[in-house]
Amino acid sequence: MSAAADSIGLGPFPGEWTRRHLLGLEELSPAEITLILDKAEVFKQAIRRGQRRIPLLDGVTCVTLFFENSTRTRTSFTLAARRLGADSIDFSASTSSLSKGETVIDTAKNIEAMDIDMVIVRHRTPGTPHLLAQNLRASIINAGDGPHEHPTQGLLDMLTIRERRGRIEGLTVAMVGDIAHSRTARSNIWGLKKLGAHVIVCGPSTLVSPRWKELGVEYSWSLDAILPRVDVLNLLRIQFERQYGRPFPSVREYAHLYAMNAERLAKTKDDILILAPGPINRGVEITPDVADGSHSAILEQVTNGVAVRMAVLWLLSGVMNRCPS
Amino acid sequence: MSAAADSIGLGPFPGEWTRRHLLGLEELSPAEITLILDKAEVFKQAIRRGQRRIPLLDGVTCVTLFFENSTRTRTSFTLAARRLGADSIDFSASTSSLSKGETVIDTAKNIEAMDIDMVIVRHRTPGTPHLLAQNLRASIINAGDGPHEHPTQGLLDMLTIRERRGRIEGLTVAMVGDIAHSRTARSNIWGLKKLGAHVIVCGPSTLVSPRWKELGVEYSWSLDAILPRVDVLNLLRIQFERQYGRPFPSVREYAHLYAMNAERLAKTKDDILILAPGPINRGVEITPDVADGSHSAILEQVTNGVAVRMAVLWLLSGVMNRCPS
Amino acid sequence: MSAAADSIGLGPFPGEWTRRHLLGLEELSPAEITLILDKAEVFKQAIRRGQRRIPLLDGVTCVTLFFENSTRTRTSFTLAARRLGADSIDFSASTSSLSKGETVIDTAKNIEAMDIDMVIVRHRTPGTPHLLAQNLRASIINAGDGPHEHPTQGLLDMLTIRERRGRIEGLTVAMVGDIAHSRTARSNIWGLKKLGAHVIVCGPSTLVSPRWKELGVEYSWSLDAILPRVDVLNLLRIQFERQYGRPFPSVREYAHLYAMNAERLAKTKDDILILAPGPINRGVEITPDVADGSHSAILEQVTNGVAVRMAVLWLLSGVMNRCPS
Repeated sequence: MSAAADSIGLGPFPGEWTRRHLLGLEELSPAEITLILDKAEVFKQAIRRGQRRIPLLDGVTCVTLFFENSTRTRTSFTLAARRLGADSIDFSASTSSLSKGETVIDTAKNIEAMDIDMVIVRHRTPGTPHLLAQNLRASIINAGDGPHEHPTQGLLDMLTIRERRGRIEGLTVAMVGDIAHSRTARSNIWGLKKLGAHVIVCGPSTLVSPRWKELGVEYSWSLDAILPRVDVLNLLRIQFERQYGRPFPSVREYAHLYAMNAERLAKTKDDILILAPGPINRGVEITPDVADGSHSAILEQVTNGVAVRMAVLWLLSGVMNRCPS
Repeated sequence: MSAAADSIGLGPFPGEWTRRHLLGLEELSPAEITLILDKAEVFKQAIRRGQRRIPLLDGVTCVTLFFENSTRTRTSFTLAARRLGADSIDFSASTSSLSKGETVIDTAKNIEAMDIDMVIVRHRTPGTPHLLAQNLRASIINAGDGPHEHPTQGLLDMLTIRERRGRIEGLTVAMVGDIAHSRTARSNIWGLKKLGAHVIVCGPSTLVSPRWKELGVEYSWSLDAILPRVDVLNLLRIQFERQYGRPFPSVREYAHLYAMNAERLAKTKDDILILAPGPINRGVEITPDVADGSHSAILEQVTNGVAVRMAVLWLLSGVMNRCPS
Repeated sequence: MSAAADSIGLGPFPGEWTRRHLLGLEELSPAEITLILDKAEVFKQAIRRGQRRIPLLDGVTCVTLFFENSTRTRTSFTLAARRLGADSIDFSASTSSLSKGETVIDTAKNIEAMDIDMVIVRHRTPGTPHLLAQNLRASIINAGDGPHEHPTQGLLDMLTIRERRGRIEGLTVAMVGDIAHSRTARSNIWGLKKLGAHVIVCGPSTLVSPRWKELGVEYSWSLDAILPRVDVLNLLRIQFERQYGRPFPSVREYAHLYAMNAERLAKTKDDILILAPGPINRGVEITPDVADGSHSAILEQVTNGVAVRMAVLWLLSGVMNRCPS
């Protein structure tokens, strides 16, 4: 393993990393988050130099256990695992035995019994990854648990901000959109605040409650009001396919008040950075000119997603290997 | 290949193994079954020592051709193939051309024409694997043909019994539940009887016919009646999702008469072994305390499943390689 | 790379190949088509000699992005990629974010941002691969764009004809069936005519328009009329599952007029070659005795499909590597 690590300049395994699971950013220290981002940058550079096989996880078997479909997140994890030399298998939960009355823990324990080392899980129920971490010996990675956390999404957003702005501390980052149902919002909030950013959550009053102040963030119902002082905008999708009880009168109304367009861009700081955890709805939360413009880092986020996941898999597997259970 | 075989203590390829297909346990000799179990133990130990890549099947391509969904059986075969260095591809039959009027044999011949060496097939029609074996040059492995056979399930159950009890000969093994529709029951019966066990099939009279005596097994409609003299219990699922015409009044009624619970456990031999070919319905055929208790070997069955499938793939590929067609 | 190329007699990378995408056969020169067929033969022979791993595309990542299901075409591409040492990932478009309002280009750009080198795309809209080629840096391979083109199908048909008949020039090739909706027909027409074959399109008048003459082919509504002078028959499926507005009175009527059966076979040239881009409907466009008879090359087409795709992936990747973008 050290030869492969040396070949990309990764250095020795960091002794200060002691976690076997990645369940959320809420529990990580600023130093741990920074460590992941630092290692992710090393992996990103190696991939960019054409090193597509960095066999640090040879003999490790990962399973993606997604109870909610997400082709792109699953693909990103799969690529991260394979580029590290791990074997990665999709366990399609929707066609599996859950429909036959099996519990989630039984399903996961059955997978683990096939000598699986890491389980990457997405489930609509908050806390599912934590439940698995308590009951399995395998490393558990939270790939989204309902509206709770999606830590690798938070990390890839943070890596993108750090790369483009050189730092996170002192920046004002606004999360805009459906804050109420967004695990991306929560993971970003925890991570960004730990690294010293000021966070604003912004959206319709039906989706942004004053109670968010309790998490130490500012809230606003008006994008135009906060725009001039924002350094980074993170435009969350309105999940129209999940909406019921209509949190706002219409898509048109939403776009009128919250879409990032050329007119609004003119009112921002010159160096504003615009993120969006795809898929984007062109013309709803963002107009095409802004999405494809120089302030947007949407595709860099995707690239950084693979790098962040490689760093996470590598760090967790290091602890796994050193502390056999 | 011999270096990899030596490295795990597998020994030379056993000349007495001459089969190119695994269609069922009915046709195997006691010596052949014992050979598979012996080799499976070697693979299991190697995996347990952390040898996740044993490149005995390099250059071999396997296809899982499942006309019925079964994520866990498919995953087990896929892991077995990959750990042997084979390439394994899922051919999702449900989304394939069968809906366009193609015959099963044509589908399989098309797959084989891509230079596929082994086809692992599940189909609801008994005899489908045999039909493919007659028409293809590839090795065929039966992963379940309707209610007929599921030989690797039978083998993994037998490996678990042999490991936990040291032998199979002379044991009394009861299969409990939906015997009528169970391929697991049939494969266990053939295998266990060949190795000298006494087998009882037990369940509601609607699911257990007196005609099972013709296969040389005892039958019983009362779990409580047979419990004191049983060494191994194999608790089959009631496939509620497939039931029609209700073979018993209610789930509650079934659980009352056939669920393995603490009360019944107290009436068994002290060293009783409890198996269940998951997914289990906690509270139906087994209560959680028994499923998670010390008599249960449910998760060991899953682990043994990968080992048994590695042994089968290796044995079949050896014959395949030596007798090119 | 050159060691692997040498080991199978592939020779140096052909400097005359300069394309980064394979969008259709219409745009290829006769020399380019011949080059692909020549290299496909080299790969086919290597596979047949048992060389299942020819690591010419190590470190290359391919994605199959299929917006229409096609298990067999996808499997053929996947095998081709893996046998060349490339990593291949299925991106299941049907369960992906397109249902969430994302554009095709955004989906593809997101995939590319994960450092994907080649995108193999199938979409019901003609021109989708061309759109991606204009907007992405990755190599794009058209695996079927509506009724427009399916170039690797055309190439595998041509390889099969060349192998069995020794040449393509001067042969009379009839495409029979649903010409109107067939991308296979279009790709064959472009390819065959470039290499000097005479092409006839034949089928019911509702599916074969006189306007096909504009592509330089002959048309006929009577199979019996053209049968005596045909060297190769390519029997297209009638896509009953897609039909609406019934282009002919009944399946029986179609079979009566266009099915290739023993009676019609007796009226053909002695050395007639019969192709069919599966899945076949036995008893509709072809009877079982003809499908399984000595004139049929249906399964060779499938084998040649993997070889042709290996050649295409290798050629495109060579240009990709030499001209980094």
